[in-house]
Amino acid sequence: MQGTTQPTTPQPAAYPATDRTVPTRSADRASYDKDVVHAILDEAYVCHLGFVRDGAPVVLPTLFARVGSRLYVHGSTGSRPLRMTGQADPGLPVCLTVTHVDALILARSAFHHSINYRSVVVHGTAYDVTDPEEKRLALDALVDHVVAGRSKDSRPANKKELAATAVIRLDLDEVSAKMRTGGVNDEPEDLALPHWAGVVPLRKGYDTPVGDPDLAPGTGLPDYLAAL
Amino acid sequence: MQGTTQPTTPQPAAYPATDRTVPTRSADRASYDKDVVHAILDEAYVCHLGFVRDGAPVVLPTLFARVGSRLYVHGSTGSRPLRMTGQADPGLPVCLTVTHVDALILARSAFHHSINYRSVVVHGTAYDVTDPEEKRLALDALVDHVVAGRSKDSRPANKKELAATAVIRLDLDEVSAKMRTGGVNDEPEDLALPHWAGVVPLRKGYDTPVGDPDLAPGTGLPDYLAAL
Repeated sequence: MQGTTQPTTPQPAAYPATDRTVPTRSADRASYDKDVVHAILDEAYVCHLGFVRDGAPVVLPTLFARVGSRLYVHGSTGSRPLRMTGQADPGLPVCLTVTHVDALILARSAFHHSINYRSVVVHGTAYDVTDPEEKRLALDALVDHVVAGRSKDSRPANKKELAATAVIRLDLDEVSAKMRTGGVNDEPEDLALPHWAGVVPLRKGYDTPVGDPDLAPGTGLPDYLAAL
Repeated sequence: MQGTTQPTTPQPAAYPATDRTVPTRSADRASYDKDVVHAILDEAYVCHLGFVRDGAPVVLPTLFARVGSRLYVHGSTGSRPLRMTGQADPGLPVCLTVTHVDALILARSAFHHSINYRSVVVHGTAYDVTDPEEKRLALDALVDHVVAGRSKDSRPANKKELAATAVIRLDLDEVSAKMRTGGVNDEPEDLALPHWAGVVPLRKGYDTPVGDPDLAPGTGLPDYLAAL
């Protein structure tokens, strides 16, 4: 408006829906909300990275990290998807998917058995990260994605290790979340059946950390691990 | 040998290694042992199914079940991979991957951070299951894969539900497991660093089942759930 200070362009709170990110089924379970998408990604340790090799699909589990609206995957320079990305021009078409299984849904009818889950599917193109500064930031993010704050409490990669590690990036442009929450959805006419029905939550969390037998004397469990 | 009774042909205990199932990296972590492969598959609720659509990879999480050396995936007849399989001749090239994350590995060096995991990658062709008897067996297996014994304690699918459900099968021919186990693998010269290093196991298991509010009177928790 006239006379008021223009704010910087606000970031939209949602990713745009596209042909590839609108599911053919249960579209009501889809979300494009950035906070929802980011939370599902950040909670996962492993993603499933899909790419096409010799015309056939390949899906491999791999560590990843998010920095803003960008994902990073790293691995040995000899690993297949990383090598293929480095050789691809202008990049490697990929699909990166993350899934959490939260609960088993046991219905009275076999048909309505299900699981509660939260997933994110990212479509896009993976590019080799060649800028040394971006690569170092990505590697820190990958370590911090495993345990927040950990990159500052470990020895950074040296030149040899950096040279042996490839990092690829994938922008969050075409991305959606999908989830099922809640309880059993049986047909009304099945409610009187004598089968137990309900939700079996899967347990999440950590067991007690086990220190390496060769820890330097006096090295205690850091607070960021004790708090897990 | 002469004079001895010939046994029936024994099933090989391992899947054959192929170009696609020998990893380019850490081949010592790979296994083709059928018992190893099957145990990893059976422990998972969800697989990640990869296929190619319009030349680009797509990776979707989905329920699955194993029957012997065959996997089944089901879904709505309207879901994309199932519809594509039904339309593909002679079938849809897929890659089906299952991953368990068992522990976080915190090393003194950023480079040696890792996770303990167990994964299985299956390459092959998915076929639409059209035989009614095989389809029914597959649907029972899918319910029993969620909780063993459950298919006998639920109402079987009726005609309308069977018609709305598509099932695809994928034979375990080209398949391998890969896993990382054990502790931290730091460089000898890093052992004296003052960073805590060790293994953080991820907790597995179930929380207390929550019965549907509309359970028929007198419907108690079945033994197969109480024993989880």
